[in-house]
This record gives sequence, C-alpha cells and structure tokens, in this order.
Amino acid sequence: MTDLSHTFAVVMAGGVGSRFWPKSRKALPKQFLSLLDKRTLIQATCKRLQEMLPQDQIYVVSTQDQATRVVRQLRWLRSDRLIREPFGKNTAPCIGLAALHLVRRSPEAVMIVLPADHHISETDRFLQALNSAVALIRQQPKALAAIGIEPTYPATGYGYLQRGEAFAFDHRQAWRVRAFAEKPTPEVAVQFFSSGEFLWNSGIFVWRCRTILEYLEELMPDLYAGLMEIEAVLGRAGYRRVLNRVYRQIRSESIDYGVMEKASNVVVVEGDFGWSDVGSWDEVYKLAAKDGDGNVVVGEPVLKDVHNSYVESGRRLVALVGIQDLVVVDTKDALLICHRNQTQDVKWVVEKLKHSEKQKYL
Amino acid sequence: MTDLSHTFAVVMAGGVGSRFWPKSRKALPKQFLSLLDKRTLIQATCKRLQEMLPQDQIYVVSTQDQATRVVRQLRWLRSDRLIREPFGKNTAPCIGLAALHLVRRSPEAVMIVLPADHHISETDRFLQALNSAVALIRQQPKALAAIGIEPTYPATGYGYLQRGEAFAFDHRQAWRVRAFAEKPTPEVAVQFFSSGEFLWNSGIFVWRCRTILEYLEELMPDLYAGLMEIEAVLGRAGYRRVLNRVYRQIRSESIDYGVMEKASNVVVVEGDFGWSDVGSWDEVYKLAAKDGDGNVVVGEPVLKDVHNSYVESGRRLVALVGIQDLVVVDTKDALLICHRNQTQDVKWVVEKLKHSEKQKYL
Repeated sequence: MTDLSHTFAVVMAGGVGSRFWPKSRKALPKQFLSLLDKRTLIQATCKRLQEMLPQDQIYVVSTQDQATRVVRQLRWLRSDRLIREPFGKNTAPCIGLAALHLVRRSPEAVMIVLPADHHISETDRFLQALNSAVALIRQQPKALAAIGIEPTYPATGYGYLQRGEAFAFDHRQAWRVRAFAEKPTPEVAVQFFSSGEFLWNSGIFVWRCRTILEYLEELMPDLYAGLMEIEAVLGRAGYRRVLNRVYRQIRSESIDYGVMEKASNVVVVEGDFGWSDVGSWDEVYKLAAKDGDGNVVVGEPVLKDVHNSYVESGRRLVALVGIQDLVVVDTKDALLICHRNQTQDVKWVVEKLKHSEKQKYL
Repeated sequence: MTDLSHTFAVVMAGGVGSRFWPKSRKALPKQFLSLLDKRTLIQATCKRLQEMLPQDQIYVVSTQDQATRVVRQLRWLRSDRLIREPFGKNTAPCIGLAALHLVRRSPEAVMIVLPADHHISETDRFLQALNSAVALIRQQPKALAAIGIEPTYPATGYGYLQRGEAFAFDHRQAWRVRAFAEKPTPEVAVQFFSSGEFLWNSGIFVWRCRTILEYLEELMPDLYAGLMEIEAVLGRAGYRRVLNRVYRQIRSESIDYGVMEKASNVVVVEGDFGWSDVGSWDEVYKLAAKDGDGNVVVGEPVLKDVHNSYVESGRRLVALVGIQDLVVVDTKDALLICHRNQTQDVKWVVEKLKHSEKQKYL
C-alpha cells in the first residue's frame, strides 16, 4: 500500500452549474443535488475518499456563500478542513489556496484534487487509480499527475489529453502527457477516439503541493504573488481581509489552461472506474437505472405510454401521456420540459432568465 | 324575421367534463373555462344568444353545486332564469324540467336547447340556423328539429344523423331525419363522410315545449311521470323537496337516446357556422390562433425550438426546449404533458386519479 500519511484530498465544491436547472439553482449548484443516489454528489465524493483517507485528511474548498450548505451536507467536516474562497475564480486560485493550507500542515503534502460533482460507479478501481497516482508522485515529486479516462465514445463534452511515452513504475504503467486538448468538435473527437492516443481529462489531479506552487510561480506569477500575500497572514489576524483583496484582484483561470497545458512535466495514470462528469440531464438519464419502459422516474408521476424519459416530480401532481425521450423536471416554482437530445440547451434557458425579469428563478 | 316572442333559449350547463384536466376539475368543468377566448365557453354561448333573444328569454340549467359559478360568470342572469337540478341526470331530465318551466311561462313556448360548452366561430350563420329552425317549428309544431353540421372530416368523436327526404319551407331547405347514429368507428366514419347523407349531431335542438313533453310522455314515461309530480308543485312550497325526490328516482338518460333516436317526426336544419364541441386539448389547439412556430401559447413560458404545441403556463415558470406536438398545461397543483395525438387519454388520467389516493386533484 502507498503511504498516505501526508496525502490529502481537496474536494472542489465551488461550481455554479446551470445545467441542472430547475433543480440546480444559483444557490443550489449540482454538487449539492441528489441526482443518481440518495447522497448528494459532494456527499458521494467524500464517501469514496473516506474509504482511502482519514476524515481529517479530506479538505473541501467552497465559496463563502455556499459554505453553510457544505457544512449542512458534510456534518463530519471540521471547520478548519473547509477552505472558504470569497467567491469563485475557477480552479487555479482554488488549488493554489488549498496548496498553501496543506503545505503549512505538511511541507511534503501530496494533494489529490478533484471536483465535488462527478459520478464514479466503481469506487475500488477509482481508489486504486488515486493510489497509483500518489505512488507515482512519491517517485517523481516534480511531476504533475492527471487521471485520464479511456474514452468509450467520441465525446465532445470532455477535454482530452494525449499520451506520449509510456513508462513503468511499481509494476504499473503511466504515460508522459504530450498535450492537453479542449473540448473538441465532433470531427476532432472522432479522430481523438480512433487514434487510441487520447484519454478524457477527468479534472482529477495528484501532485506535491510544493510542486504545483512552483508551477504557479513559473506559469501564473500574478496568482502566485497573490498567494504569497495570503500566505504571509495565514492563520493570523487579517487573513480574511487579505484573502478578499487578493481574490478581487486575481484573474479567473482554470488549472488546465493556466498550468497543465504549459507545464513541462505532466504524467497521466489511466483510470477505468465508470467515470462521468454528469454534464447534463441526459447524462443523468443514461447513468441511472431504468424501469421496463426505459424511464427514470423520481417521485410519483402518473404515466401512460411514456418511454425512454427522465421524469422527476415533486409535490405537485404530474401526468404524462404519450411521451418519448423527454426530460421533465418539476420543482416548486419552475418546470423544465426538454428533449433528451437537447439538454445542453438548459444552459440557454438559464442565460435567458439571467437577462429577463425572471431572475428569481435562477 | 321569425317572431321570437315565445322563443326561449335553454343553455345546458351541467357538464362534468374531464377532458380538460388539469384546467377543468370536478368543481370547474369545461363550460366555465376560457379556452379560446377571454370569455368562458358559457359566457360566449350566452353572448351569442343575446344577439338573438332578449336576456330574459335565455335560461340556464345547471346542477345545484355549480349554480354559484353560473351566477358568478353570468351576472345579468335573473335568478328565476336559472333552473337548478339537484344533480346531473344527463340531458333528457334537464330538458324535461326546462320544458315545464317554459310551458308555465308560455303554453306555446319554443325551446332552443344547446350545450353551454361548444365553440362557434361564425355567430351570424349560427343565429340564422337557429332562426330557420324556429321558423320550421312554427310551421311544423309537432316536429323536433335538430341542427346538423356538414362534416368536414370523418370524425369519430361526434354522433351523426342521416338525412332522408328533403323539403322546402320559407324558401329554405330542411330534411326529415332517417336515423341517428352514435359516435362511429373510424371505418364507419369514413362511410358516413363519403356518403354525403350524414351530418354531425350538434346537440342543438329546437322544438315546441309541449311537443317535447308529449314525446317524453310517449317514449320516457317514467321520466314524464316524475316531471308531472314536479309540475304539480311548480312555483309552490315543496318544489325543491319534490324535485330532489324525483331526481333521485329517475334514470340518467340523454335526449338523443331517450327521444331523438325513437321519435317519428324529426327534422334537421343544416348549419355551417364553424362549430366544434371542443372535445379535447388537441381540438383547442386546432381551433386557436397559432404563432409563427405553430404554437398556441397562454401565459409566459420560456420556449426554445418548440413547434406545433399547446403550452399554457400559470404562475410558475415553465421552460420548454426541443418540443413538438405536445400539450402542456400547468396549473397551481397539477401539470399535464400529453402528446397532441393522445389528448383523448386525458380522461384516462382522470379515471386513474379517481381510483387513487390523489382524488384531491380531480
């Protein structure tokens, strides 16, 4: 077994996803929803990590205004394991801030960083992949490790990373990463898929905290300067004030764009553990167990001749007749009816609401 | 002009239609809904009649428990023009009761009897047809006149009547009726349609009140006996008590089955006035004005790629994406999503609710 005594998980819970409207709202993003389970996505994420790490080695980063919800959903989480950002600035600042906290706890800290809102169906294989990546980072402390997923179809909704040279470590295999690629067009996705060289970028990374901070210093010097200001007051009076000031100044940037695409020493460990980023209602439909009519039914709607649909009703009575391939999500004050092939356009609805008089439904 | 001094309209408002659930409810049947107009169907029906008859020659028959709603929707209606049935027993008792009241007012009274919940797009032609039928009844006081509608397609949702011998009256034409036919199968409907002999039975009839009472005596003697008990106390103490007792005893029966199909002297005047019985949500869709996407939109739903659909939203936000040929009706406590080709199955939903724990939604 890999030694995990200085290994910490950092669950990034700052997402503001609009793809699950009307169930997700500005004040209730996807990670706090039960979509496939009685557990919410963040609860399921932490539950998996708890099988690998002691509770006090699990950190959560959330924005200030969602901290209450994190605390409510994760009763076991010690308040000093919840890192609060004043507001979301994408993953690079979030990871930098977490790295500061962890380095202070242990200079040799290894960070497993992962989004709070992904679905993983095979926990054992997931934990094996994390263990492998941690072991790899212990051997190569200057590397940044990504968890890559063998694609099962030419997805256009995921970023990719291209495998380069393979190498062995501890009787396992990993690859150097040649390139990162943003979400591709359908044509490019087919090329990626058929080449066999590309893996999905899961957004799950493992690295030594000092290493990622060195990369931030090199590749995102503005952010690094801000982080150093924060570090100077870490655990002291003035921390919140400096944090707020720095966060107002720094740019919003993803770790992928800010570091991973440019870093010289990136490796990838392959994982095959039923991963999905649960990016749309249609994805939820596909991942969920279906009844004999191919439906996923939440609540107690009245159905007649309904097939291959996702139907979620709340307190109101919902009746469907002669329906196929729809997503129907009914909440107290808002209702979505969307073709399964068009659930990416739920974002359009949310944008539309943002620029309307109906902002209370966001 | 036909002399209308002894002519009365009787609007039958006792329907308990379930086909417009969730907008129609047990306590709010179709005739009280605005489906195609700001006016409710019963308001529109009375408005048309008011162009032909003085207000005090218009009667409404409703059940006791819907009388309050009738009064609320028809503020001009004098209370002695509202005939209250203890409960609905279909059209034959309703018509018999109205006939008693009218004969008492005028022994030579002619009754135009019609459902409260039909749609008529061309009022002038409708009133011409009624005038013709009244003129015919003045010439043939022993006849029962039906208003028949030239079919525009092989409808299976309407009853038919078969024209026999044609005859002229007052430079107009009418036909003796050879037979009445219930709602046909699709095959039979095609035969009816292509034969040219059949007209839709609109459920609108004109007759002398004494004549229909004579037919009731001959063909529905039990009902007639009950009516005579009521007549004996009409306008006197005990009326309500006798009415209740008689209504508990008499059979529920339609005038079509009880009288029209068996009567010897039935004639038909043809009408062509954009008539529909508005029998389903799909019918409402077809009758209503559509926007550029072929949609009928009530309320302020958010739509993207929605075509050929009927969408009615209330106070909640309703968003539709990638939808075709649906009926979506959202009310405070219940929601219907139904394919336009299957709106006849809304009745199924209501039946299902009747036999469930969800009767509060009826």
